[in-house]
Amino acid sequence: MKMLERLSGETRLFPIIGDPIIFVKSPQRLTSSFAARGRNAICVPMQVPEADLERVMHGLSRIPNIDGLLITMPHKFTAFKYCATSSARAKLLGVVSVMRRNPDGSWHGDMLDGLAFVQAQKDRGAQPDGARVLLIGAGGAGSAIAIGLLEAGVRDLIIHDTDEARVVHLIGLLAGLGRVTAGPPDPTGCDMVCNATPMGMAAGDPLPVAGDLLLPSMFVGDVIAGHGVTPLLQAARAAGCKTANGVQMVEAVQEMMLDFMLGK
Amino acid sequence: MKMLERLSGETRLFPIIGDPIIFVKSPQRLTSSFAARGRNAICVPMQVPEADLERVMHGLSRIPNIDGLLITMPHKFTAFKYCATSSARAKLLGVVSVMRRNPDGSWHGDMLDGLAFVQAQKDRGAQPDGARVLLIGAGGAGSAIAIGLLEAGVRDLIIHDTDEARVVHLIGLLAGLGRVTAGPPDPTGCDMVCNATPMGMAAGDPLPVAGDLLLPSMFVGDVIAGHGVTPLLQAARAAGCKTANGVQMVEAVQEMMLDFMLGK
Repeated sequence: MKMLERLSGETRLFPIIGDPIIFVKSPQRLTSSFAARGRNAICVPMQVPEADLERVMHGLSRIPNIDGLLITMPHKFTAFKYCATSSARAKLLGVVSVMRRNPDGSWHGDMLDGLAFVQAQKDRGAQPDGARVLLIGAGGAGSAIAIGLLEAGVRDLIIHDTDEARVVHLIGLLAGLGRVTAGPPDPTGCDMVCNATPMGMAAGDPLPVAGDLLLPSMFVGDVIAGHGVTPLLQAARAAGCKTANGVQMVEAVQEMMLDFMLGK
Repeated sequence: MKMLERLSGETRLFPIIGDPIIFVKSPQRLTSSFAARGRNAICVPMQVPEADLERVMHGLSRIPNIDGLLITMPHKFTAFKYCATSSARAKLLGVVSVMRRNPDGSWHGDMLDGLAFVQAQKDRGAQPDGARVLLIGAGGAGSAIAIGLLEAGVRDLIIHDTDEARVVHLIGLLAGLGRVTAGPPDPTGCDMVCNATPMGMAAGDPLPVAGDLLLPSMFVGDVIAGHGVTPLLQAARAAGCKTANGVQMVEAVQEMMLDFMLGK
């Protein structure tokens, strides 16, 4: 009863806002982690329809015992404009997944998803520093992961997406951060392969990369969570690769969110 | 861990809004009661400065998994205007202490403090129906209690306040609800005596009524909570009266709030 015993008028609030909201796991996970760290704090779910974000943000901003916000779909892009300050990666993407208070009460935003993806890979043996990496998917997740990889020291980043315009746009966005090129979904010569597409969620999806070209020296990561071992990770394991999955990314992001919310 | 186990994306929210907020007991009490009734619901504290109520209300109204609000100082009067509908007693006072959703998402307000005060008396043997009652204090608490007493069938209500204008105002407000008159703080001839003033909170406060005129047949109730047995209740017990105190009122109001929030 640790959490309930501490719930009181002094409890600090960290709502997660999104729509739909019923599927989010952060209320239980983050609240448990707050308790484990001895904090009287709780993450509560708040359903916020897309059209109502402005009014809700104006309201929540005026509640001083709300110390932070977790942002999920569909608000990750629109929430950015309510941040007075933000990390360089959040600015680059125009996206925030977490917000905490500045000393003056305004919001500081960050986007931790890409960082957490890379952390999950590193925790399982990947060495992105100096690596050559094939990234599949140049959408929201892919963009965040691309930045995470470059921040981790990736030397050569090859990006593939069936939508070539998205690749061109992302490469433009990443200009100056490292060597980034467009390429085919061929892992040959790469140290890491990262899937940032939904491919593997539906039965019968093709592999996002040429699975028969995977080698034991390659580290293979997948963003997909909650769908068991995806066909890509099955192929990677069969080829002798080390792997990381979307659940491990989600676990990493929880700890990062907690550190961020507590100002670390 | 019952509460924490159920905390999830499906949890329904019932914030309590006020300023200061750190002293409120509803988050733990109401949340425990929700759990005891098998509800995945939580009461969370929200500090809302007086000047920010409008923006906060506009925001909270747009969060569909907020099913109800508890209102405490300084918002009990101002929150009334955000209620599309309200009980007759809330309208009379222009005050709400609780709000729940109407089917269209708008707010329905009520003011349960007076009702809870009377319930605490009845639970301990008072019989307000047909009674003659002396009420001390014509402020916010006194006004709510006056209505609660008249709704419970009090035949004669005598109100005393050192501020005579407040008594005149309250008697005007209660016109049509029953026989209400101004009078001295003399319990002679009364079945019940109710203190709705802060007298008894500070050391050296005089008794709100003439204590030497209390008789064993009188029921004596006090709104003061958290200050032990007040001098009035000490005098009442010494005189052989049955009594009820402010803590018992607070307990009664918790159950009433829960019933109200759950639409009962």
